[in-house]
Amino acid sequence: MAGWTEKGAFPGADDSSSGSEFNLIQRYFLPLARSDAGSLDLGDDGALLDVPVGQQLVVTTDALVAGVHFLDSLSPQDIAHKVVGVNLSDLAAMGATPRAVFLAAQFCKDTDESWIAAFAQGIGEALDDSGAVLMGGDTVSTPGPLAFTLTALGLVDAGKALKRSGARVGDDVYVTGTIGDGALGLLCRTGALPDSAYLANRYARPKARYAFGHALAQGELASACVDISDGLAADLGHVCTGL
Amino acid sequence: MAGWTEKGAFPGADDSSSGSEFNLIQRYFLPLARSDAGSLDLGDDGALLDVPVGQQLVVTTDALVAGVHFLDSLSPQDIAHKVVGVNLSDLAAMGATPRAVFLAAQFCKDTDESWIAAFAQGIGEALDDSGAVLMGGDTVSTPGPLAFTLTALGLVDAGKALKRSGARVGDDVYVTGTIGDGALGLLCRTGALPDSAYLANRYARPKARYAFGHALAQGELASACVDISDGLAADLGHVCTGL
Repeated sequence: MAGWTEKGAFPGADDSSSGSEFNLIQRYFLPLARSDAGSLDLGDDGALLDVPVGQQLVVTTDALVAGVHFLDSLSPQDIAHKVVGVNLSDLAAMGATPRAVFLAAQFCKDTDESWIAAFAQGIGEALDDSGAVLMGGDTVSTPGPLAFTLTALGLVDAGKALKRSGARVGDDVYVTGTIGDGALGLLCRTGALPDSAYLANRYARPKARYAFGHALAQGELASACVDISDGLAADLGHVCTGL
Repeated sequence: MAGWTEKGAFPGADDSSSGSEFNLIQRYFLPLARSDAGSLDLGDDGALLDVPVGQQLVVTTDALVAGVHFLDSLSPQDIAHKVVGVNLSDLAAMGATPRAVFLAAQFCKDTDESWIAAFAQGIGEALDDSGAVLMGGDTVSTPGPLAFTLTALGLVDAGKALKRSGARVGDDVYVTGTIGDGALGLLCRTGALPDSAYLANRYARPKARYAFGHALAQGELASACVDISDGLAADLGHVCTGL
């Protein structure tokens, strides 16, 4: 698959035979390439991407480990939404429009095909909202917990990307959405707070605000922008440190 | 850091404080950006990459898990060389010149600073041979084994990328290097064969042939190309399947 390497270690596949992995990728992940020519049907050593003249590429990578970055109890679809959401949120914070993602999935020995099918479905749902396609990846097995690394590539007009370093003393600070929904949703999921479908969903399926970020960048309305992941105070601190 | 997210879970760092992670990244990984402006000093939500007019981007991702894709007994430098080498080899097989890599590192709780320092040194050595720089990444901790996902980006003249689909009936088949060195090196490392520094090194530090691949692509000397990772018969089989 384009940039999709088969090192054999797919669950259910012998290391000496990548036939099973090949079939699973063809069945569940190839549709997520949405017939993008550059994906080379997820069947080559790498994917090919054209960057239009006058645009720059924005690239970001996030790794999420079960039990560390997401609850083991999340559904495969929720995990997929989270993996995509946190990455696309980084693109949004730069003002970039999502274009392509590359997924490295570490499945456990007991990860079965139905889990993978549901996970792939979630990846597809999360990508479809964004316009990005899956252009490659890697599937391996691990004796450790489930883990997923997504690399997301977005496009932005040259020179228009929002950087943290653009902040200046005297700038006003604006926040999109409602701070703390994700943290509260985690507490709902763990039973520390009464159940709330809204908050639980905000934790499990973060929505990247790429349309907003892109509009900010195009309109030159913001001098700096940051994705909040460690909390407003911590991430605003990162911006202020550069002042 | 550019595309380098701090989700807190760096060894030695509290989840609530990414100060230690920040310092380790600044100390060991920032130098590997080689002052590339697009890396934004590994301090933003994403990295910025310009693709020259007339060129295409080639993107590939590989995940390597300790005990699955490399021996636990390898030195941090060897692991670093292997992580970089297998990825750049995919770029080479497409005829691309390495430009940038993004590293998602899953460290264990007991991974100490000296290990990380040696690992980063190895990443630097492997990259310097290629001309690529580290433009971003992520560092997290895992209760499982060490694992590294590298996403490598390369450049190729538009339309010149070598694809597996270019193969035609009647084509001659050529191989670079010596088939099986890596497999023999693994046997040396595990004691199944007498020690051989040459073979052990071929296993631990695969050399990507990007200069050769790039020359093949530029000279239009090959109709198709593939990185051999599963063995000549298996990977040649993948090429032939598309005929």
